[in-house]
Amino acid sequence: MLNDLFAQRVNPDVPSALSGLFPQDTDPRAISFAAGSPNESLFPVAAMQTAFDTAIAQTGAHLFQYQTAQGNPDLRAKLAARIGKWGQVATTADNVVLTVGGQQAIELVAKALLNVGDEVAVEVPTYVGALAAFDLYQPTYHAVPLQADGLDLDRLEETLKRHPRIKLLYTVPDYHNPTGITMSVAKRRELVALANRYDFIILEDSPYRDLGYEHAPLPAIKSFDTEGRVVFVSSLSKILMPGLRTGWLVADGDLLAAIMRVRLASDLETGNVVHAAIDAYLDANDLDAHIAALKTSYREQCAAMVHALAAYFPDDISYTQPAGGFFYWVTLPKEIDAAALLENTVIPQAHVSYVPGTNFYPDRDVHNSLRLCFTGLTPAVIDAGMHRLGDAVKGAVRGVKPVV
Amino acid sequence: MLNDLFAQRVNPDVPSALSGLFPQDTDPRAISFAAGSPNESLFPVAAMQTAFDTAIAQTGAHLFQYQTAQGNPDLRAKLAARIGKWGQVATTADNVVLTVGGQQAIELVAKALLNVGDEVAVEVPTYVGALAAFDLYQPTYHAVPLQADGLDLDRLEETLKRHPRIKLLYTVPDYHNPTGITMSVAKRRELVALANRYDFIILEDSPYRDLGYEHAPLPAIKSFDTEGRVVFVSSLSKILMPGLRTGWLVADGDLLAAIMRVRLASDLETGNVVHAAIDAYLDANDLDAHIAALKTSYREQCAAMVHALAAYFPDDISYTQPAGGFFYWVTLPKEIDAAALLENTVIPQAHVSYVPGTNFYPDRDVHNSLRLCFTGLTPAVIDAGMHRLGDAVKGAVRGVKPVV
Repeated sequence: MLNDLFAQRVNPDVPSALSGLFPQDTDPRAISFAAGSPNESLFPVAAMQTAFDTAIAQTGAHLFQYQTAQGNPDLRAKLAARIGKWGQVATTADNVVLTVGGQQAIELVAKALLNVGDEVAVEVPTYVGALAAFDLYQPTYHAVPLQADGLDLDRLEETLKRHPRIKLLYTVPDYHNPTGITMSVAKRRELVALANRYDFIILEDSPYRDLGYEHAPLPAIKSFDTEGRVVFVSSLSKILMPGLRTGWLVADGDLLAAIMRVRLASDLETGNVVHAAIDAYLDANDLDAHIAALKTSYREQCAAMVHALAAYFPDDISYTQPAGGFFYWVTLPKEIDAAALLENTVIPQAHVSYVPGTNFYPDRDVHNSLRLCFTGLTPAVIDAGMHRLGDAVKGAVRGVKPVV
Repeated sequence: MLNDLFAQRVNPDVPSALSGLFPQDTDPRAISFAAGSPNESLFPVAAMQTAFDTAIAQTGAHLFQYQTAQGNPDLRAKLAARIGKWGQVATTADNVVLTVGGQQAIELVAKALLNVGDEVAVEVPTYVGALAAFDLYQPTYHAVPLQADGLDLDRLEETLKRHPRIKLLYTVPDYHNPTGITMSVAKRRELVALANRYDFIILEDSPYRDLGYEHAPLPAIKSFDTEGRVVFVSSLSKILMPGLRTGWLVADGDLLAAIMRVRLASDLETGNVVHAAIDAYLDANDLDAHIAALKTSYREQCAAMVHALAAYFPDDISYTQPAGGFFYWVTLPKEIDAAALLENTVIPQAHVSYVPGTNFYPDRDVHNSLRLCFTGLTPAVIDAGMHRLGDAVKGAVRGVKPVV
C-alpha cells in the first residue's frame, strides 16, 4: 500500500481542519454565508492593472530574476510604517517578511517552533486554517475560551500553571475569525506580561484589523512586546485582494532568523512581481481611502445581518456582536448539530449555507455553532438568505423542544 | 532563552544546507560562477508585461479572488500537455499542482511523506535546496553515488537491501544540479522497477530538462511509472523567469491527495494573477522558440567554460561534461578544501566565486569539489574569470604537491 509511505501528518483517519468547509449547492436560489471571501465588486482592478504595468516598466528584466527571501524591501518598509501608524508597533523593513498570504506566515511560525507533541494554546473557537497549519506539526492543544473582550486570561493562566511547557499561543485579536470578537487593550498588555512570565511565544494573527466599523484599529499585541516574543501576522487579502497572495509577518532577533531559515527551505522566496506591483499601487493610490470605501459597504452588510438575526431567528440562539471584520458566530441550542442541520435541512430546503462550527475547535467537541460571513452579499440578499436560514433554525429548535 | 522554544529543525548548531552559498565580493573585478540564476538579458519582459495586462483585462476582478489550491486550470492543462509532448508522461490538468517554484514542490512532497527519522536516498552530490527542504523533516539519509549516466543503480539496490525502509528517493535526472549529469533512459526504466520492487517513492526533480544543448529531452522517469510512485517536479524558473515563482508537480491518486492536503494547510493556494499571466503569455508566444533562443546562448557559454577548464586548469582536476543545464562540477585533488580555497585565495586574490561542494552532500563529508554556473556571463567574461580561477587552482595544487 502506497499510503503506508505517507507521513503521520496526513493520517487519512483524521480529516484536515480545512476539509468539508464549503458545501456546494448548485441551486439557482443558493445563498452562501460560508466562504470568508472579500467582496470582489470592491476590488481596485484598474489601479492594480496599472500598477503591474508600472512595476514591470520601471524595473524591467531584473524584476523577474531571483530576489531576496524576505521580499521587496520597499513594500516591507511601507508595511512596517503602516503597522507603526495603525498598530503602534515600532519596527522596520528589516523585521518584515512577505509571505504567501497570512496562511504561510502561520505555517512558518509553526514550523520554526513545533516539534511533535509540543504544547500550543489556542482560543476556541479559532481559525481553521491555523489549526490545519499547526496540525502539520502534530502538537498537543490546550483550548482557552473567548469572552466578549477576547481571550479569557484567567483561564489561560490556569492552563499555563497546569501546562508550563506551552510554547505558543495563537490568537486573532481583531474582529476574530470566526466570532468577530476583539480583544481589549488591557488584555493585550496583560497577555504579553503572561508570555514573559510563563515563557511562551504569541502568534498574533490580525488580517481584519483595518476593517473596524465603529472605531480605529487598536494597538497590536506586538506593540506591548518587550522581549521579542510576539510574531505579528497580517495580510493584504482582506483589505486589498486575496489573489495577490500577499501576507506578512513582523518578528525579531533569533526568532526572525529561525522563521527565515524555514522559509528559505520551504520556497526560497515568493511573489517578486506581485510585490513590486503592490508597491507601485501603494505609491499611486491611497490604501486608507480604499479601506474606507470597503468599510462603508461592509458596515451596511454587517448591519443587515444583525438585523436579520434579531428579526428572523428564535430566542433560543445567541450570537456575537462584531464591530468589524467578516463574521457572526451563532450558537444554537446544545441539542442541535449545526453540520447535520446544514446537510439535512438548510442546504436542501432553504438553499443557504454556512460553515458548521466543529472544525474551529481543535478537539472537534462542540457541534452547535456556526459561522456566517456577510461580505460577499448585498444587504437585500443577506436579508433574504437570513430569513430562510432563520426559518430553518426555528424549525430545528421546535423539533428538539417539547411542545408545551 | 527564547531559542529554547525553537523546533529541533532549526537547531543553530547545524547550519542550513542553503547557508553561506553565495559569498559577497564587492570588488569591481568580481566574477561570480556561484548563483544558479538564468540570464536576465534573455527574459521576455515585454511579452510578459503584455501578458499581465491581457490576463487582468480578460478576467477582471475575479482574477484577484480566492481561487483553487491546485492553481489555474488552463495553465495546468498546458503544462500537462508539455510534459506529455517532451517527456512522454500521459497526464492531465487534474494531476498537476502549481507551486512556488520547484522548491515548494519538493518541500510539499517531503511534508507529505516524512516523519522524523524516516529514510531517504539521495544521489550525491545533490541539490542543496532539496536537502534543506528534507532537513525540515529530519530524515535519515542514504547517499548513492552518481555515474556519468546518472545514479549508480547497483549501489542503490545494495542500499535498498540493507535499508528496506527507505521510502523516498530524490533525483535530478536531467542536467543535474550540481553536476550537469543526465540519467540514461535505461536507468530511468530500471529505477521505476526498483521503486516497485522495494516499495519507495521517486521524487523526480527536472527544472533543466528543456535546456539540452545536444539532444531533445529524454522521457521522464514519470513516463515509466506503473504504480503512481513517481512525483514529477519541474519549474518555469529556468526556461521562463524565476521571479514568476512558478513550479509544478505531477502526481497521482492518494499521493496527490496527500500532497494537496499539506499544500492547503501550508499556504491555501498561490499566485493566481501570475499564473493567469503565464497562461496568457503561452497563448500569445511560442515557448519552445524562446527556449531555442536560450539554448543558443547557453550552449556558447557552456562551450566557453569547458574550453577554459581545458586551457587554464591543472591536469590534477577532473570535471563533468554536461550536455545541457547550468553547471559544471569540478573535483580538485583530495587535499584541497574548496571552501577554504575560495575564502582564502580565490575571492581575495582572483575575485572569482563559485559554490564549494560540501553542502551538496547530506553528510557534508566531501570538501574538494565545487560548482560552476555559466549562464549569467558572456563567453568573454567566462574566459577571463576561468583564467583567474584556473591560475588560483594551479597555485593551490602546487602548494599541496611535493616539488619534484
